[in-house]
Amino acid sequence: MNKKINGYKVAGIYGNIKKKKEKDLGIILSDEPCNVAGVFTLNKVKAAPVVYCMDMLNKGKKFRGVIVNSGVANAFTGKKGMGAATDVVKAAEKEFNLKENSLFVSSTGVIGGPLPVAEIKKSLPKLSKNLKENNWDDFAASIMTTDLVPKIVYKKVKIAGRVVSFMGVAKGSGMICPNMATMLSYIVTDAKVSSGFLKSSLKESVDNSFNSIIVDNDASTNDTVLLFANGLAGGKALTSKSSGAKKFKDTLNEISLELSHKIVRDGEGATKFIEIHVKGAKNNKQAEMAARTVAESMLVKTAFFGEDPNWGRIIAAIGRAGVTLNEDKIDLNFGKVRVLKNGLFTGKENEAARELKKKNIVTTINLNIGKGEKKVWTTDLSYGYVKINADYRS
Amino acid sequence: MNKKINGYKVAGIYGNIKKKKEKDLGIILSDEPCNVAGVFTLNKVKAAPVVYCMDMLNKGKKFRGVIVNSGVANAFTGKKGMGAATDVVKAAEKEFNLKENSLFVSSTGVIGGPLPVAEIKKSLPKLSKNLKENNWDDFAASIMTTDLVPKIVYKKVKIAGRVVSFMGVAKGSGMICPNMATMLSYIVTDAKVSSGFLKSSLKESVDNSFNSIIVDNDASTNDTVLLFANGLAGGKALTSKSSGAKKFKDTLNEISLELSHKIVRDGEGATKFIEIHVKGAKNNKQAEMAARTVAESMLVKTAFFGEDPNWGRIIAAIGRAGVTLNEDKIDLNFGKVRVLKNGLFTGKENEAARELKKKNIVTTINLNIGKGEKKVWTTDLSYGYVKINADYRS
Repeated sequence: MNKKINGYKVAGIYGNIKKKKEKDLGIILSDEPCNVAGVFTLNKVKAAPVVYCMDMLNKGKKFRGVIVNSGVANAFTGKKGMGAATDVVKAAEKEFNLKENSLFVSSTGVIGGPLPVAEIKKSLPKLSKNLKENNWDDFAASIMTTDLVPKIVYKKVKIAGRVVSFMGVAKGSGMICPNMATMLSYIVTDAKVSSGFLKSSLKESVDNSFNSIIVDNDASTNDTVLLFANGLAGGKALTSKSSGAKKFKDTLNEISLELSHKIVRDGEGATKFIEIHVKGAKNNKQAEMAARTVAESMLVKTAFFGEDPNWGRIIAAIGRAGVTLNEDKIDLNFGKVRVLKNGLFTGKENEAARELKKKNIVTTINLNIGKGEKKVWTTDLSYGYVKINADYRS
Repeated sequence: MNKKINGYKVAGIYGNIKKKKEKDLGIILSDEPCNVAGVFTLNKVKAAPVVYCMDMLNKGKKFRGVIVNSGVANAFTGKKGMGAATDVVKAAEKEFNLKENSLFVSSTGVIGGPLPVAEIKKSLPKLSKNLKENNWDDFAASIMTTDLVPKIVYKKVKIAGRVVSFMGVAKGSGMICPNMATMLSYIVTDAKVSSGFLKSSLKESVDNSFNSIIVDNDASTNDTVLLFANGLAGGKALTSKSSGAKKFKDTLNEISLELSHKIVRDGEGATKFIEIHVKGAKNNKQAEMAARTVAESMLVKTAFFGEDPNWGRIIAAIGRAGVTLNEDKIDLNFGKVRVLKNGLFTGKENEAARELKKKNIVTTINLNIGKGEKKVWTTDLSYGYVKINADYRS
């Protein structure tokens, strides 16, 4: 991706953190101070870098960027871990001639081990040398762990008469689940956006994207989404009342959705991309409960891997989701194939089996009792998932 | 198992229900009317036989036994399914010369297909011919689906001066999870027990056994535990105030626990038997939430399969369990190996790895903030699990 975003430089290098000599240290740096919004893991056990970022954001200032390492998560490392995160930030701020409290920090990788601060410090001059406007591929590579492919989304749109650009980068494949699991994402834009509108827009877009994908059901200690806006596109700062507000939100939603779908497609061992769309629930909350329970079911996920239109497992999952149900009203589709009508099997076994052979499967469940609706995205559960996760540390 | 329980006869045959010619039709029959207690799936979608049994129990009468088929679950079959269950019971009551409403019925197997009532009726004379006092092996085989081994527990104890015998039979390997998933169990005794005490004893023993095992996280539509007491051991009927009450409950708990552990060990693709023991939680409820979240984590389960002492995944699971936590107080053991002390890694990587190579692994997590405690039992997540569940219907 040979694109640039006005006023941002990025780098990604091998910083001697991973055993395999793969890129493991990256930075995003804005020439100008940015408004920043962040969303973090809901896990009660938060890694040191997450706590560091949350503290920084609470100070409510402007920021210049973020330094990220992969390989070691710096999670469950106690006070030493917080000290290590702080040391890395301080050293980077010095290396890049920034004021104190200019940078955020993220880490992803194995939990429990100490962050190799000395190695990271030693690598900073190399990181600085690598810093370029069009270096997003290197940065995207530097934040990968079990990811098979880098994940980048670029958009250029007109908002309130001005050309505005966005670049979004993400990593994450295992532990992808509701509430932001082992997932890092950084989105930068040159739009000029008020701090409050930036925050509310990010929250909404994360809820319908990163927080609506499920690979396994685990939430990591390190998940972070940061959105930077340096304002170089000019004009008046966008607020929720601006004429460009909808376009800004829509674009952000598209980027978040595309990045999150890339994460699902790269899910550990994934062979299918599956949308679970629950309609007609009592309300949106119940639709979400039902959709998540189906998407999290190991039996449903193995059935998708086996290309088996086993709607019985889907209904059993909905039955234990704790939602209002009338069995005799449920309709269920795989793609356009109606498998259940008013709670009874339509007999379309062969058509359904054909639908399940596809790479992308939209499963629609209409409870037909209300107007609640929710889409979530997930993968199948394959031999590959087990292999990757049984071998991760060895 | 060549044992008999006073006054009970059993049978198990091939009744032309399964495609493979394996036993698929069984019956337990008491010479005398029995007090009966039952516990059923909490899934809102309940299979026809479960609804039938619940209706029967609500009538509060005495009963003679239960007829069970494997191969077809008779779940999500609408009014026809309820008619089919009723037809099977009526035909069996006629075949065995019983009054109306003497028998319970259970079904287990694939969801959605119609129960082959005609085949079952045709097989009843053969079932009748097979009926014997010591035929528990045949019965245990007849209720199996993906089970690799039959599951039978026999106990003979003295209760309040009388010799009392128990026979427990169970099936279930996949979908084994909290709240009784694809699991059938029948326990018979010749003890004389009041209806109320029978009910409360069963409820308590199921909570700490069948409802505390987790293979995957799915709850089936068909789960049933029935406890029959025909009273032939004589004496006064046991109540909660009898001198023998504790011994009766303890024996029932042992049987339920042994049967439920047999189910876990036979879990689909299981290579390990894992106890998750949470101690020191704020209260028992929080201990249970934490234990279940760990036992249900796909990442934790694949780590056990990989014999990887990845305590980070366990802590991440506890972090999202919604329980009160103080990271700096958590201790964690694999067997006797202390891996975390006051929230920090003890460095005992090699000792922990050796512990993980064992077949039986006790994982103890002490939150050290209260007196809440709970044990649950689970398995690892292996290639075998994926294979069995991807191929189940084909």
